Amino acid sequence: MNKMRTESDLLGELQIPETAYYGVQTQRAINNFKISNNYLSHYPEFVKALGVVKLGAAQANHELGILSKELFDAISFASNELIAGKYTEQFPIDMIQGGAGTSTNMNANEVIANIALEHLGKQKGEYQFCSPNDHVNLSQSTNDAYPSALKLALFNMNKPLIEALTSLYEAFDKKGKQFSNVIKMGRTQLQDAVPMTLGQEFEGFSNTLHKEVDNLNRIAAELLVINMGATAIGTGLNAVPGYAQLCTTKIAEIMNEDVSLADNLVEATSDTSSFVDYSSALKRLCVKLSKICNDLRLLTSGPRTGLFEINLPPKQPGSSIMPGKVNPVIPEVVNQVCFKVIGNDLSITMAAEAGQLQLNVMEPIIGFSIMESIQYLTNAMNTLRVECVDGITANVEHLKNEVQNSIGIVTALNPYIGYKASTKIAKEALETGGSVYQLVLDHGLLSKERLDEILDPKNMLGPHV
Amino acid sequence: MNKMRTESDLLGELQIPETAYYGVQTQRAINNFKISNNYLSHYPEFVKALGVVKLGAAQANHELGILSKELFDAISFASNELIAGKYTEQFPIDMIQGGAGTSTNMNANEVIANIALEHLGKQKGEYQFCSPNDHVNLSQSTNDAYPSALKLALFNMNKPLIEALTSLYEAFDKKGKQFSNVIKMGRTQLQDAVPMTLGQEFEGFSNTLHKEVDNLNRIAAELLVINMGATAIGTGLNAVPGYAQLCTTKIAEIMNEDVSLADNLVEATSDTSSFVDYSSALKRLCVKLSKICNDLRLLTSGPRTGLFEINLPPKQPGSSIMPGKVNPVIPEVVNQVCFKVIGNDLSITMAAEAGQLQLNVMEPIIGFSIMESIQYLTNAMNTLRVECVDGITANVEHLKNEVQNSIGIVTALNPYIGYKASTKIAKEALETGGSVYQLVLDHGLLSKERLDEILDPKNMLGPHV
Amino acid sequence: MNKMRTESDLLGELQIPETAYYGVQTQRAINNFKISNNYLSHYPEFVKALGVVKLGAAQANHELGILSKELFDAISFASNELIAGKYTEQFPIDMIQGGAGTSTNMNANEVIANIALEHLGKQKGEYQFCSPNDHVNLSQSTNDAYPSALKLALFNMNKPLIEALTSLYEAFDKKGKQFSNVIKMGRTQLQDAVPMTLGQEFEGFSNTLHKEVDNLNRIAAELLVINMGATAIGTGLNAVPGYAQLCTTKIAEIMNEDVSLADNLVEATSDTSSFVDYSSALKRLCVKLSKICNDLRLLTSGPRTGLFEINLPPKQPGSSIMPGKVNPVIPEVVNQVCFKVIGNDLSITMAAEAGQLQLNVMEPIIGFSIMESIQYLTNAMNTLRVECVDGITANVEHLKNEVQNSIGIVTALNPYIGYKASTKIAKEALETGGSVYQLVLDHGLLSKERLDEILDPKNMLGPHV
Amino acid sequence: MNKMRTESDLLGELQIPETAYYGVQTQRAINNFKISNNYLSHYPEFVKALGVVKLGAAQANHELGILSKELFDAISFASNELIAGKYTEQFPIDMIQGGAGTSTNMNANEVIANIALEHLGKQKGEYQFCSPNDHVNLSQSTNDAYPSALKLALFNMNKPLIEALTSLYEAFDKKGKQFSNVIKMGRTQLQDAVPMTLGQEFEGFSNTLHKEVDNLNRIAAELLVINMGATAIGTGLNAVPGYAQLCTTKIAEIMNEDVSLADNLVEATSDTSSFVDYSSALKRLCVKLSKICNDLRLLTSGPRTGLFEINLPPKQPGSSIMPGKVNPVIPEVVNQVCFKVIGNDLSITMAAEAGQLQLNVMEPIIGFSIMESIQYLTNAMNTLRVECVDGITANVEHLKNEVQNSIGIVTALNPYIGYKASTKIAKEALETGGSVYQLVLDHGLLSKERLDEILDPKNMLGPHV
Repeated sequence: MNKMRTESDLLGELQIPETAYYGVQTQRAINNFKISNNYLSHYPEFVKALGVVKLGAAQANHELGILSKELFDAISFASNELIAGKYTEQFPIDMIQGGAGTSTNMNANEVIANIALEHLGKQKGEYQFCSPNDHVNLSQSTNDAYPSALKLALFNMNKPLIEALTSLYEAFDKKGKQFSNVIKMGRTQLQDAVPMTLGQEFEGFSNTLHKEVDNLNRIAAELLVINMGATAIGTGLNAVPGYAQLCTTKIAEIMNEDVSLADNLVEATSDTSSFVDYSSALKRLCVKLSKICNDLRLLTSGPRTGLFEINLPPKQPGSSIMPGKVNPVIPEVVNQVCFKVIGNDLSITMAAEAGQLQLNVMEPIIGFSIMESIQYLTNAMNTLRVECVDGITANVEHLKNEVQNSIGIVTALNPYIGYKASTKIAKEALETGGSVYQLVLDHGLLSKERLDEILDPKNMLGPHV
Repeated sequence: MNKMRTESDLLGELQIPETAYYGVQTQRAINNFKISNNYLSHYPEFVKALGVVKLGAAQANHELGILSKELFDAISFASNELIAGKYTEQFPIDMIQGGAGTSTNMNANEVIANIALEHLGKQKGEYQFCSPNDHVNLSQSTNDAYPSALKLALFNMNKPLIEALTSLYEAFDKKGKQFSNVIKMGRTQLQDAVPMTLGQEFEGFSNTLHKEVDNLNRIAAELLVINMGATAIGTGLNAVPGYAQLCTTKIAEIMNEDVSLADNLVEATSDTSSFVDYSSALKRLCVKLSKICNDLRLLTSGPRTGLFEINLPPKQPGSSIMPGKVNPVIPEVVNQVCFKVIGNDLSITMAAEAGQLQLNVMEPIIGFSIMESIQYLTNAMNTLRVECVDGITANVEHLKNEVQNSIGIVTALNPYIGYKASTKIAKEALETGGSVYQLVLDHGLLSKERLDEILDPKNMLGPHV
Repeated sequence: MNKMRTESDLLGELQIPETAYYGVQTQRAINNFKISNNYLSHYPEFVKALGVVKLGAAQANHELGILSKELFDAISFASNELIAGKYTEQFPIDMIQGGAGTSTNMNANEVIANIALEHLGKQKGEYQFCSPNDHVNLSQSTNDAYPSALKLALFNMNKPLIEALTSLYEAFDKKGKQFSNVIKMGRTQLQDAVPMTLGQEFEGFSNTLHKEVDNLNRIAAELLVINMGATAIGTGLNAVPGYAQLCTTKIAEIMNEDVSLADNLVEATSDTSSFVDYSSALKRLCVKLSKICNDLRLLTSGPRTGLFEINLPPKQPGSSIMPGKVNPVIPEVVNQVCFKVIGNDLSITMAAEAGQLQLNVMEPIIGFSIMESIQYLTNAMNTLRVECVDGITANVEHLKNEVQNSIGIVTALNPYIGYKASTKIAKEALETGGSVYQLVLDHGLLSKERLDEILDPKNMLGPHV
Repeated sequence: MNKMRTESDLLGELQIPETAYYGVQTQRAINNFKISNNYLSHYPEFVKALGVVKLGAAQANHELGILSKELFDAISFASNELIAGKYTEQFPIDMIQGGAGTSTNMNANEVIANIALEHLGKQKGEYQFCSPNDHVNLSQSTNDAYPSALKLALFNMNKPLIEALTSLYEAFDKKGKQFSNVIKMGRTQLQDAVPMTLGQEFEGFSNTLHKEVDNLNRIAAELLVINMGATAIGTGLNAVPGYAQLCTTKIAEIMNEDVSLADNLVEATSDTSSFVDYSSALKRLCVKLSKICNDLRLLTSGPRTGLFEINLPPKQPGSSIMPGKVNPVIPEVVNQVCFKVIGNDLSITMAAEAGQLQLNVMEPIIGFSIMESIQYLTNAMNTLRVECVDGITANVEHLKNEVQNSIGIVTALNPYIGYKASTKIAKEALETGGSVYQLVLDHGLLSKERLDEILDPKNMLGPHV
């Protein structure tokens, strides 16, 4: 049987495994919140960010003369261990928790205190030498430390998302260049419209995703506005003058990012709108990604009774019953991730709206939902690129034939014969199955030379005199 | 200038147009809630339902001996006027209102009081003879009268929705029968699958919509469980014993429907789950309708570079620039209505969650959102049927050719040559452009006779030995 | 290094760990779908349900003479192993997957085939003796086997949810009885209203949750309508006549539940509305649960500047900075779970709407989201009951004083002195800080005896003459 | 009976009222789309924006030499009439329409053509002299003209929204200053926390709303990126070189705003993300507004059994049964508007995701939903300010007493006696009902002088040595 040590708090004593670096309040949270099987330890960036916040606070406290050199050294050592990615497994609490993150903050306070204690040559649990509350949490409250750490973690998690997104739009761009001479029919309302190139279509995908990079980065930068020094409700009770700004500066140095202090700490302590904004940006990205995946699935539909314009690389047999069938499984999985992210955005919206008075107690579900969305999306975009986009090929001949047989090219005749005459030709072509080209000649509307020039595909791909 | 009369309440005096049947509290609501330009008067079923509730209460009060014959006669007369659809224009309050419907309830109380007063030979405003609060609202509170009227109104508004839905599924069914011999390729994941008939597809649309009739009616029946007699918070304070059940019985008689009293009036007074349920049912209908409209738009895509399986009746020129283009505008508008209804469902969910303690103060937005959804959907389904479904035709030859050219028919060979051999044939057909039929013969896998029988389209449309 | 065996499919060869019971198609899915870290193996009820479906199909196939006794015995043995909860770890595929569940279905086919092969004395991978496609998947398609298994799994997962819900409403009911004599002020719109008992309030919680039991069970029963025999698109191609019904009957026997066959298999194969309905029911439950938790948090607010009506059992120190603070962490975590479930409902709605033509390819995200919602909710309700509701106590004296000091009791005087006179008393009490009781006497509106009787708390808790 | 004229299009002839300036395609849309009773004519900014777009196009066409001086003058005259707010009633089409806005664009083309015709001395309908398609719509497609007009309209509608928002945050700021010396208890998780001023709370409301001004304006500016010259699908077919930029420049001049041309017209023609972004910003505003209104309702709860911290101006009698009750009806109506806007955001999200290939056919519901949201929100914020915020008063004495009696002030002792000792004091205070002040003295933990200084309210409102 595991050896245990006894710890106590306001509510009494509890047994803690001797090997555990966490303490009594973490243990209470383990017992209280058995909800999702998603633990803090699954989100290493979050644990690191808690280390950053605690280190910044300790540096400020020490510089302001309220934390001894010895304790500062020990707490610094311990915080840096977290920042280095160690002790992650000491964060066994459910991501979905009550208490506005108090359990998470105390988990960090306790783990750091116990690492520090050992560093000081003491035993775990000898909090009289280094206390989770009085020393590690000095000048802090959950209500500033928790949301600040959450924001810093999300800021860092945004980076691999941006990498995946960048690689993806570049992959579409490469395809756009590869398909720049592949002429095809464009469609509006799923009806044949006018000619374009497949390259233009893929460049459109690239262009529209590219724009999300700046949007996400701009909003991620909002996450660098933190509320350290706010303490319980933003009034800064128990923080000494100058602490808020100094702590923020220290965190900025540790992160090497443009971290800044909120201009109104009371507002900042209950406000969750930077989370809402970041989630909205993920949602907007998903609206685009899902639309693109819908398009890819349409364009590859067939092979004989669909659009059959492009081929996605086959990834797996498509059916347990239909031999030879290959399905667009990669875009399909991306669509589904998008629906999940949009669902998460609703959870976040409701949680943000549910804040009351000086705090939003629903921050844990907000943080969890965004982290989940980031992870799923990062994975989904990498999958889409590697397993699908990079290997897309075009059915060039089929696409060319579609343009030649189309009725939509009659649009190009508008400036020469007018909308009404063009309409008549289109109607006749549709009814008789004839070609626009032949009908225009038959009706003597334009000379062959003029018609050839107007309907030259390359003249239909852009503005033209 | 209009002549005015003076009325007063807790907050003081106010001028009311002499011609108005409403009174001071309605006037305050007109002044307070200038939000949406959607007025009670736009929802005549709601005004009628208020009349029903007030009549039922008056009947019960009279029978219980707490409302005089003279006042009962006058209030009955007035309530019946509302039930007959008169005085609707006397309900000029915004549907979106604070106060949990107090303004709406008082609007009804005031209009009925003033009609009653005139019926009694008195002047409007002489409330000492017939008071909106003491007589018309006798034994009631907004908190029972308002949600009860809302539920009865929605129950009645469900009827034309059901008619529109019934006509729509019947129209699909008719098309299903018409297309019962039109063979086509079925598709899964937008990839060619195996043969089916267009009739089966349209019968599927009919069948899936048909099921919503029972679902909606079942949930609408839940709306007949009301909380009259609950008064302010469900304890029935100020209602005499027996009133709750008697009033409910009277309302059941007036409506000629199976109206019943909630089993727990405290619960019923703060609960909005029957609204949530009805809105969920509308959402489910929309999920189906939107999917069907997506399918119709896919099936009619083309004419030359799409699926081109069916033709929707042309309703308007499709483009201001592309001559001859005809777009599936009717399914498109239905899709959009579905998105609106699903958005409304979210508004309702949030409003229902926001109830606090003994009342849900957000009932007005719940009622308004459902009424809007019902109206839009009823109109959309009638439009879809009349302007689109009834006139759909099939491109029979094209559909037949698709089956003959398809690779998916290889699936029918599984039981005879196995999944692995079928897969090889499919792969070869795809790569060479060859036909499954010829390849099976070439490889000597089956005799021509056996193959002809297996691939006979009618043998591929269902279970077969 | 692990020993590997080679398997192949349409796309070529792949190395499979020798110890693995899954095969090439599972391996492809592992490679293709690295999205969420939520695997089939996390949902044992799903794996069991796949076993049920495969067993039912094998029984029907054998009885119809198309599956040999030897293969039937082996496949039965293997399926029963899954049903017994074994081999769960052999399902390592991400719950979020493209392909409409083909990977999941093939995972089951492959694991069963390999267990069967070993049972037959063969080696894993010797599919010529027992093939995942030709034998285990005989007469099936992913498009019937997958949604059928999903439905059966959800039906079974509903049971512990119902247990948790039942225990919870019973816990509230017990509290309702315990508090049946605790008089308090009811509130509407957060304003003091009229008296009630705390027991009535808690009975209301119990009553409103109780109703969800029937609702969920009714909708769960819809999940027992399956589409076995539909094969690819509902036409039943490759299934022999009679198979669909027979297979369903077998599954009903295995489950010992009222499983039935869908009346229109084409409709059933693309329809996801039973999932939508079940998720709507979870959403409705969450709307109620979240409202109740909001109420509990309001009622326990304080201790000195809030309502301070009830005490939740303290579960952990409430603050890292504010000593002695104890927060309502359990209702808080339940609120957050509710927001997650409502978010999942949106994901499901969008996925259901995205179905196209003969299939809904988004079923995996639908299934995953519902399973997640059920698990979180089951855990949350058990937590709410055990960690919170069971230990709630009332501040009886405080509640009694509130009633005595309230202005709202003036409502009880309406029937005796009229709404206008009551209003004046209320206004005066509010302005002067006086008591309603004294003011009525001062103004000589009622005798002391009459007043005492009317304002006797027990006379204000229900209808009264 | 009204005199009629005959017009015709691709689909045949139709009768148009002689007095109507709209033509055959508008009439078809009237007939086709009977959905919502919300007409273009209800949104005058939209009609004006259509005038702007048509004027800009005419100027560019004329300058590029493809529109005669005579026609240019006539079309300019007509477009300016629309810009001046005339002829709004000539736009009788439902806002919810199929066809991606073709009906709206043609409505504008037809009205302008007929005004121009009369200006030219011709009869309405003599389109051979000025054609809706060939002249008014010259170089345009619905697919560029419609979304461009929609964006310009929304940009203009954002302005009164910003005015309402600005006035609202200023009103909160004014209250913040007024309440700057009113000390009260702050709350976290609805539990008593530490002291603050009511001024800090209201400044927080002001500050958080203030930030939305910049956010909305920044995103509104994105709406000035338009796609004129894209024509049907972004390739610019039928537009002459230079037209796209010139037309955009002209529109910028007419609007006197920084209107610019999208960098990729193919992308821009199917992309709806600027709408999604603007709606997300409205949603974020609503999350804040709804939270503030929830807070106002909490703070004004009572009068005797609630927080009773502030008084909202009474707007109407609060109850039809409870005399003297005054409810927070204005915040309540704002909450409801917020739920509607959040619901609309979902409709917009779904519509944006539903775009396919070269166009998003769901733009009409997107435009309608945003316009509705803007209008409701503008009205709601003006209502909140005028009818509520401006008249809020504080219950100063009550708030002061709360601080003095609170346990939360023990937090201020942490730095002096440590978290553990503070916790013991807090626990004893809670159990005995004693005051923190007395208990600290009783236990001899601090001298009276030191204690008085630490617990001086003004020392608890911010960082302090």
